[in-house]
Amino acid sequence: MLVYADNAATTKMSQAAIDIELSLMREVFGNPSSLHSAGQRAKEVLEEARATIAECLGAEPREIYFTSGGSEADNQAIMTAVNLGARKGKKHLVSTAIEHHAILHALEAMKARGCEVTLVPVGRNGIVSAADIAEAIREDTALVTVMAANNEIGTIQPIEEIASLCKERGVIFHTDAVQAVGHIPIDVKAMNVDLLSLSAHKFHGPKGVGVLYCRRGLAPAILIEGGAQERGRRAGTENLPAIAAMARALKDACDNMAQNAVFVGGLRDRLIDGLSVIPHSVLNGDREKRLPNNVNMCFEGVEGEALLLMLDRKGIEASSGSACTSGSLDPSHVLLALGLPHEVAHGSLRLSLSEYNTPEEMDWIVEQVPLVINRLRDMSPVWEGLEDGSRPHII
Amino acid sequence: MLVYADNAATTKMSQAAIDIELSLMREVFGNPSSLHSAGQRAKEVLEEARATIAECLGAEPREIYFTSGGSEADNQAIMTAVNLGARKGKKHLVSTAIEHHAILHALEAMKARGCEVTLVPVGRNGIVSAADIAEAIREDTALVTVMAANNEIGTIQPIEEIASLCKERGVIFHTDAVQAVGHIPIDVKAMNVDLLSLSAHKFHGPKGVGVLYCRRGLAPAILIEGGAQERGRRAGTENLPAIAAMARALKDACDNMAQNAVFVGGLRDRLIDGLSVIPHSVLNGDREKRLPNNVNMCFEGVEGEALLLMLDRKGIEASSGSACTSGSLDPSHVLLALGLPHEVAHGSLRLSLSEYNTPEEMDWIVEQVPLVINRLRDMSPVWEGLEDGSRPHII
Repeated sequence: MLVYADNAATTKMSQAAIDIELSLMREVFGNPSSLHSAGQRAKEVLEEARATIAECLGAEPREIYFTSGGSEADNQAIMTAVNLGARKGKKHLVSTAIEHHAILHALEAMKARGCEVTLVPVGRNGIVSAADIAEAIREDTALVTVMAANNEIGTIQPIEEIASLCKERGVIFHTDAVQAVGHIPIDVKAMNVDLLSLSAHKFHGPKGVGVLYCRRGLAPAILIEGGAQERGRRAGTENLPAIAAMARALKDACDNMAQNAVFVGGLRDRLIDGLSVIPHSVLNGDREKRLPNNVNMCFEGVEGEALLLMLDRKGIEASSGSACTSGSLDPSHVLLALGLPHEVAHGSLRLSLSEYNTPEEMDWIVEQVPLVINRLRDMSPVWEGLEDGSRPHII
Repeated sequence: MLVYADNAATTKMSQAAIDIELSLMREVFGNPSSLHSAGQRAKEVLEEARATIAECLGAEPREIYFTSGGSEADNQAIMTAVNLGARKGKKHLVSTAIEHHAILHALEAMKARGCEVTLVPVGRNGIVSAADIAEAIREDTALVTVMAANNEIGTIQPIEEIASLCKERGVIFHTDAVQAVGHIPIDVKAMNVDLLSLSAHKFHGPKGVGVLYCRRGLAPAILIEGGAQERGRRAGTENLPAIAAMARALKDACDNMAQNAVFVGGLRDRLIDGLSVIPHSVLNGDREKRLPNNVNMCFEGVEGEALLLMLDRKGIEASSGSACTSGSLDPSHVLLALGLPHEVAHGSLRLSLSEYNTPEEMDWIVEQVPLVINRLRDMSPVWEGLEDGSRPHII
């Protein structure tokens, strides 16, 4: 059995999205900026896609800016707030310790422009408290950016509450919703979100395309200068086939969100229940306020990379945390932020699901993971030590 | 007959490129950063694509950085040289008056960072002189950026000569080769190019993907912060299906370059010869040092937009200049740089071809364009005035 359980890293495109992308590659290949019929037809399809995406987010079409993906949108969002803040003498940025590196590294880069960054810690459950964010906000705060859901542990953050308090305090609020959009309800207007990033390949859309939502009245900073595309805020010929495929994938994800959440959430719970019986295991992140598709556990005495490779041989494709940092020797900054010790954080396993997974696949995982963990623990000198009766770190 | 003659704006994807993109969407959808088999297979395909593209450019694989397209690569290239220059107190940038807006606007943005920009004029033939570039270089010049071939008038610039003199003077040389790569021979090592931008959709590859070539020893500036993709210089999950499709399209373009150039150049000459008999017409840009696929002419007394729309009704899809600025009321900065008066520059027609065009299509264009121009001139009060014997501007 081959089980793909790394959907937080990337998803398989839906057949509907592939069909649209393919048909546009073949039939509507014009440049939307061209005046001739081929260009104008492309322009129409582009604006239809923009309207579809806007509707899925509770936004207006003019507030949707197409980007090459979530990372670009995150960078552009931060730059937008920093530029605006600079004009008002505001140079303080607030975020959390568990953001994606696209946020953390972009914030770090802003320090060279004189910005000061406060990273608010999260609780042991992997959730930031709105009160802690409120406390971090200063008179000179230009931006609060908090992810809608965490990419490693799937915890859902109280962004509605945070966005509201930002609105009260007159601070721009951005959310990296790359893991959330298409999976849990997001309505930018109802939630008072000023800026939002999403990435198509996290909800069965194509890679290489994403969106920056930017509330009307805010003009996105220009990361890529050039032609007048995207209301002059993002240059480059529009990637129309991918954009239209993204719109279709997002619409399908939103239309089927409730039923997918029930089904995928059921798979997730089957995994969590089945794997929690493994001795010296722990679920990372809140059990309730959690994406329907995310399982993240640590198994003490087990090295994450070895676990992944052995599971891969069994046909189970998973990850230890963020795909973007796999291969790195450092333990996950997210798990460390939960307060896990280094040696435990090294032993994490992320299983991220989608509606393409099946209950039978979950049963296979629940059968195989304990076998692999036993085998790894048998080989581990560290684990031998723990068997002498000393208390493991995490239980 | 439907004739697509706007290939400088964008091309139709080749069937081979579509096939690869489609098969990867279906079969190799893993995240190249993932450790499991799906990820590792994706990583292999990614590195094969990188090697193919490197070979096509005379580069090493490690010098190839994938981007979302030509505009992003141009911006990243300029930022790279500006950052490096800043560390040495060099803040002067040299370019030409006929660059693409991705270059011109990115240079303009660098002025806010204290840079000084010199735009070297071109001759009436639309070609910059290497001697003029040499004269513009100062002790504090951080970058010379000159396009390999112009997107509107197709003139091929002496980049080899300019790159060599930059090397002698210790100045970084970048070329926006978006219109050149896949159409005329480019060898970055033989030509002493430090930085080069290309875009896949200009040679029958997909939209939304491109390359920054960055000579070994130079580290590209980071435009998009985040994960460790692209040697840590460009974050975001790699758009593997598009990257592999780009590699295939580029290899095909390079393998067939000589025969395509003969065929497409023949189509071009058929058009130029056939349209040059129209009274008060002029070919913009050098006739010899010209991309095989480019025709750009002005017809006095004719307004460009009306010409395009009437040709479109005849099934001829063309443009007046750059797609990126169509809809703008300003005349082309490129045509103005040639010394054309405003009212003449407004009447330009760009016909850009590919190997998918046919001689019959050229005959149709040669038949229809004069009819449309006569009709427009008949309606034009300005043209009436010229018919009284006064000398038109451009002949």
